[in-house]
Amino acid sequence: MKIEIVTTGDEVMQGVIVDTNTAWIAERCAGLGHEIVRQTAVGDDLEAIGDALMSAAARADCVIVSGGLGPTADDLTMEAAAKAFALELVRDEIVLDGIRAWFERAGRPMSKSNEKQALIPEGATVLENRVGTAPGIHAELGGADVFFLPGVPKELFQIFEDAVFPWLHERARTACAFKVLRCFGIPEASVDERLFGMDLFGARLSFRVKFPDILLKLLGCGQTTMEAQRSVDAAAAAIRGRLGDIVYGEGETSLAEVVGDMLLKRRMKLAVAESCTGGLVCSLITDVSGASTWFERGVVAYSNRAKEEILGVAAEILRINGAVSEEAARAMAEGVRRTSGAHIGVGLSGIAGPGGGMPAKPVGTLFIAVATPEGTAAHHLSIPRDRQWFKQMAAATALDLVRRELLGRTA
Amino acid sequence: MKIEIVTTGDEVMQGVIVDTNTAWIAERCAGLGHEIVRQTAVGDDLEAIGDALMSAAARADCVIVSGGLGPTADDLTMEAAAKAFALELVRDEIVLDGIRAWFERAGRPMSKSNEKQALIPEGATVLENRVGTAPGIHAELGGADVFFLPGVPKELFQIFEDAVFPWLHERARTACAFKVLRCFGIPEASVDERLFGMDLFGARLSFRVKFPDILLKLLGCGQTTMEAQRSVDAAAAAIRGRLGDIVYGEGETSLAEVVGDMLLKRRMKLAVAESCTGGLVCSLITDVSGASTWFERGVVAYSNRAKEEILGVAAEILRINGAVSEEAARAMAEGVRRTSGAHIGVGLSGIAGPGGGMPAKPVGTLFIAVATPEGTAAHHLSIPRDRQWFKQMAAATALDLVRRELLGRTA
Repeated sequence: MKIEIVTTGDEVMQGVIVDTNTAWIAERCAGLGHEIVRQTAVGDDLEAIGDALMSAAARADCVIVSGGLGPTADDLTMEAAAKAFALELVRDEIVLDGIRAWFERAGRPMSKSNEKQALIPEGATVLENRVGTAPGIHAELGGADVFFLPGVPKELFQIFEDAVFPWLHERARTACAFKVLRCFGIPEASVDERLFGMDLFGARLSFRVKFPDILLKLLGCGQTTMEAQRSVDAAAAAIRGRLGDIVYGEGETSLAEVVGDMLLKRRMKLAVAESCTGGLVCSLITDVSGASTWFERGVVAYSNRAKEEILGVAAEILRINGAVSEEAARAMAEGVRRTSGAHIGVGLSGIAGPGGGMPAKPVGTLFIAVATPEGTAAHHLSIPRDRQWFKQMAAATALDLVRRELLGRTA
Repeated sequence: MKIEIVTTGDEVMQGVIVDTNTAWIAERCAGLGHEIVRQTAVGDDLEAIGDALMSAAARADCVIVSGGLGPTADDLTMEAAAKAFALELVRDEIVLDGIRAWFERAGRPMSKSNEKQALIPEGATVLENRVGTAPGIHAELGGADVFFLPGVPKELFQIFEDAVFPWLHERARTACAFKVLRCFGIPEASVDERLFGMDLFGARLSFRVKFPDILLKLLGCGQTTMEAQRSVDAAAAAIRGRLGDIVYGEGETSLAEVVGDMLLKRRMKLAVAESCTGGLVCSLITDVSGASTWFERGVVAYSNRAKEEILGVAAEILRINGAVSEEAARAMAEGVRRTSGAHIGVGLSGIAGPGGGMPAKPVGTLFIAVATPEGTAAHHLSIPRDRQWFKQMAAATALDLVRRELLGRTA
């Protein structure tokens, strides 16, 4: 089914609030395999609402409208619908009784303006609102099934789940399955290139950059859930075949979670010595619940003194090579590994900017070292962007280097 | 001016992501007194995009379009515009050179597909993208001024602020002034209550929770910029009078920046010992450019061993009181202060959850200690929410406690 979503309200229109209802409705509909073809938002304006409703009803099989069912003067949706489709609004006594009862239960006086909420288009179906006063309404208008829902998220969700979702479910011709593959390490355009012309076994692929990750979303549809799942699984396997270990995980899993899982399986612990990332690597790690079982400690060694005192970096190394150098990163990684007793130590040293750049070491210079029982590997990168970008990319790269190091070790 | 906003993208259409760009754009436009008359979102579909663009251009004076300027096959906005308005797309060599240079700076190979981003409608103006590859485009189409912007928020914001906002500003009939007051420490409803019934000198106040901060946005309009500014300044002063030091800063200033500024003025340095926040306090601090002048070091002492070895916390303290205790937080703050030589040491210890709670110390328990040359103050808090909420709130509270400590010291 082709579905359109219409939102009404000056606050959405002026950007005072972000409309999260629409994405929620869209996801629920898309999950049933229905096609959302357009989302429209208009202000509290009779003509604009009417026009949006009419064109949506003309294009789509089903229109889901939210907002403008409240009691105040700027709640105009039903009036606009009545005008646009030449409907008669009639007072529904059962709805009115329900509103009265709601106020009684809430121990508040009902205002005269709430009576407006009982005005229903003739022949329409009332959808019960169990958490507020404005009922939902289902009417056939302009050849489409139009659902009117209140804009208050709690009320909208309840009525949608109770009345709209089951209706949509009955009309869903296909079953759908989803999968998200999470990638790190190459730009979006390169992922696109590598996947060019692939057979995706009927699944639909979309890209989403959730910096610094790239998410590949697969949507498969079929006669049965099993068929849909098969299509998604086959596409995922094929993509993994092309991208190899650029795919680090699936679903909501973070890079730090994957690293933690690998460490746990190998009964290893990690320790981190950061300079330029200033605690972000540790913070990403400790976002993972239970990280204490595989994360021993972190040191944010911003000063040379801290590097020497806590990590045992030789003053000589810092003096000769500078605090931003491969040698310093190596010494930090080895130092934090040695002092913590962890199996793997990571050291990061670089220039996040905007200040602090030098001709030989410009802003964006980054050294990452990973120390293991077998030795230390150092990496020299360049991330010449703003400070936040640098920190995020540097921290994720460090975690990814640990992941790649662990890939080579049997669990 | 009548403005419409058009968003493109399957992810928005299917509800995979919430479109926050639109509200942001709308707010910026509304702030200049322009009228937003409609917001439309369509999927990555040539016809749907073309149709949305044409009807928007027919209704509005100005259309702001976001998304679909990327390099991949599902980025269709310019192709759709060209088809709908019968435009010729021409390769802009200057833009292409810019994209090439961008990849060179980033040290990454440019993909063939990125060349598509240099296809510009004939006669259109290119708007520089300083943070990504897709330039913005300004073209007169169907009688309206149409601005095409990339969907990546950072890129969209930059191009909008650099090129679109000044253009809109010139065409605004009234002068407007803005101010944002940043608050931390009490809930939104309490701020609202304290400000109830205030005279705001004609300015308009709106609330925005940017967790864990509460932002008070003031918008003043007038015949002249000076008049608008006066209204905003008077309102801000009145609000500060009511809220006192709950207001920690203005505009884009972060709590860490305010703390850094205060430390710099007092020629003091800070050191941090974190456990439950796992590096987040340090990361917030090092988000501030130049933090190295006032931040000495941070220790993420997740294990008892790290607390003892790096911070010199007595094993006795941990054994008797536990790692999550006022005594441990005190010893951590004092330890990091002593070992680093910084003037102020902060220690955090708590249970972020979801695991690790005990009857006497449930999930959400938090101890923060601030050690100064004059002694150590300890605070016991309870933040029984999810892990992310806990970390964010705990880290901000620690910074706020340092700020309040510094408020009492002359600069």
